[in-house]
Amino acid sequence: MKYPEPPPIDPALQPIFDAHDEGKISVELKEPIAGREDLSKVYTPGVAEVCTRIYDYPTEKRKYTAAPHTVAVVSDGTAVLGLGDIGPDAALPVMEGKACLFKQFAGIDSYPIVLNTKDVDEIIETVKAIAPSFGGINLEDISAPRCFEIEDRLKEELDIPVMHDDQHGTAIVVTAALRNARMLSGRKDGELRIVIAGAGASGIACAKMLYSTGVRDIILTDSKGAIDPSRHDLTPVKQQLLSWTNQEGVRGSTEEILAGKDCFIGLSGATVSEEAIASMNHDPIIFALSNPTPEIHPEIARKYATVVATGRSDFPNQINNVLAFPGIFRGAFQAGATQITEEMKIAAAVAIADVVLDEMSTEKILPEPFDERVIPAVTEAVKNAWLTGDAEWVIR
Amino acid sequence: MKYPEPPPIDPALQPIFDAHDEGKISVELKEPIAGREDLSKVYTPGVAEVCTRIYDYPTEKRKYTAAPHTVAVVSDGTAVLGLGDIGPDAALPVMEGKACLFKQFAGIDSYPIVLNTKDVDEIIETVKAIAPSFGGINLEDISAPRCFEIEDRLKEELDIPVMHDDQHGTAIVVTAALRNARMLSGRKDGELRIVIAGAGASGIACAKMLYSTGVRDIILTDSKGAIDPSRHDLTPVKQQLLSWTNQEGVRGSTEEILAGKDCFIGLSGATVSEEAIASMNHDPIIFALSNPTPEIHPEIARKYATVVATGRSDFPNQINNVLAFPGIFRGAFQAGATQITEEMKIAAAVAIADVVLDEMSTEKILPEPFDERVIPAVTEAVKNAWLTGDAEWVIR
Repeated sequence: MKYPEPPPIDPALQPIFDAHDEGKISVELKEPIAGREDLSKVYTPGVAEVCTRIYDYPTEKRKYTAAPHTVAVVSDGTAVLGLGDIGPDAALPVMEGKACLFKQFAGIDSYPIVLNTKDVDEIIETVKAIAPSFGGINLEDISAPRCFEIEDRLKEELDIPVMHDDQHGTAIVVTAALRNARMLSGRKDGELRIVIAGAGASGIACAKMLYSTGVRDIILTDSKGAIDPSRHDLTPVKQQLLSWTNQEGVRGSTEEILAGKDCFIGLSGATVSEEAIASMNHDPIIFALSNPTPEIHPEIARKYATVVATGRSDFPNQINNVLAFPGIFRGAFQAGATQITEEMKIAAAVAIADVVLDEMSTEKILPEPFDERVIPAVTEAVKNAWLTGDAEWVIR
Repeated sequence: MKYPEPPPIDPALQPIFDAHDEGKISVELKEPIAGREDLSKVYTPGVAEVCTRIYDYPTEKRKYTAAPHTVAVVSDGTAVLGLGDIGPDAALPVMEGKACLFKQFAGIDSYPIVLNTKDVDEIIETVKAIAPSFGGINLEDISAPRCFEIEDRLKEELDIPVMHDDQHGTAIVVTAALRNARMLSGRKDGELRIVIAGAGASGIACAKMLYSTGVRDIILTDSKGAIDPSRHDLTPVKQQLLSWTNQEGVRGSTEEILAGKDCFIGLSGATVSEEAIASMNHDPIIFALSNPTPEIHPEIARKYATVVATGRSDFPNQINNVLAFPGIFRGAFQAGATQITEEMKIAAAVAIADVVLDEMSTEKILPEPFDERVIPAVTEAVKNAWLTGDAEWVIR
């Protein structure tokens, strides 16, 4: 197959491409092999002693191999950033980037595994087959609703932590941000009336996590408007939402149903008008998280809301998953956890929110990604949540 | 499941275990993420530019991701060293060790993938599914005859180099060693009468490669003796050997059929008596390659043979795959090869043998593993063999 010749790179973008020269990660020896003696330790004949010990005492794998300390970043490339289904090859730079973040922020080794299949069963079988090579599975950029079944079944069938970060990483950081935003606005969890635009992986995960922390009035919307009982076009996953969201059966577009609501969480890529924001309850909380274009420009949202968050680093209050996933896997690894429980996720959200408790402002409801207090706090909280089986939702 | 408490480690072996502390490899960032600006290059939003370019121009994957420059070291743990079927977990130290050798000797990144299945179809499907994450597949320590079908089908179905090192790495180095040993003994390829003890992965691959270089008189043996047409217990793979090996239909045990032969290649783990060696043709060539215990002690073999090779580093003439596989994959990567051809393997064997041509002796038929001339020579030869589609079997 003959591919077209790539055009020259826009000089303004050259630094980005330079940072990707033959990829961003490498596999290194912890210690160089300096000669025959080293060789006989790390390879034959010495290595046979280590193999035999692991064979006889399987728990020794954790002590003498890298696998249990390494996360697989697994994607089929079907829902990459805002780019959609670009396939495994084009998804690689994101997965390598994720591996970079794991290492940079938490010192956790991880390796990108992109898959040449979109079939749910094949993805599950593949991950199960390679699972002995890793200590945890970070699912990434897999489209809904396939991501739900893939995560659920892998959690069920593997005895190592599995987390779909687009769901839970986002949900954890949104939950942390909303905890602090709500404190600043003097509202209580039970009083918040929330509209979540986007009923995909992250929207549904956010709704579930907020519900588990006590929020009761949640309506999700998709491109057709509110997920409501009168609709006949709902997937099984969206149908299930109706048992605990939109209990009043509200109908209408996202913009129509925002009137009188306390909080808007945008995870859809769609836009929301200034009029719709103006129709919300007094001083609403606006999380316009679509990247690179927020659902409403934060400057406009700020005319109505004291707390505005986006997914971007060039505005205040960035909702960034990097606050969560590195510490979550580090905590899980340190605890020897065999899964990521709801308690661990709640503990992570509280830990993230608590980092800025004493310095909190409308422009700082979350710590910055490079705040060095975050990962240790999340790690500790997640570890304790596993070891004690408990996490307190700190309402404050 | 409750596992027994591991006993203390023999202090004499402690240095080996120390060299395996939490594994021997790590995944590193090529450049640290020093702040927000770096973050916006290696991850969102900048990374989207790279993803989009690869999506639009697939060949750019090679330029901007690590995957095409990385070898997967894949094993199901069914035939690990002399230990047999110890499973994926216990196989990990060997696969990590292999990754260390790739990096140390050829600067090639590789990553160990051990599989939780022994099913041929599942192994093939798994490797195909993860293939976009890698630029080459090094199959390792997979038992015969499964290894043949797995390699054949993966070579057929993938467009990246695939090589089962236990077969071809061994065959290449044995072929190189035998070229020089034969020169020293003044024999020609066509005259050699060879017995190969062991009709597993490496034995069969050696036989095939030697045949392709002009050796015609080859008999393989297994635990029941010579593979001969009178036997009714032969697997299909062994059956096929009869069309081009043991053309005289010789029957008998390995020891019985050694009488009058020129060369013994041991890849079986079985032992061979001094009497059997003594019955061979004058000044035979003895490659007793089983590890850690050669089929016959090299000191005894030396009473009859001027050239004796083993698999061990503490005797002269070590047959060590590390002479071949790092340079083979490096050459294949540099050439942009989509497979490892027979020509590339022959070229590698000649290159290895030629490194010591001017300094050759009965105690030095091969270069040492740490000889810095080897990998560049193999790399060049393999690259040229791919690019020209040709390799000359240099008989000398």
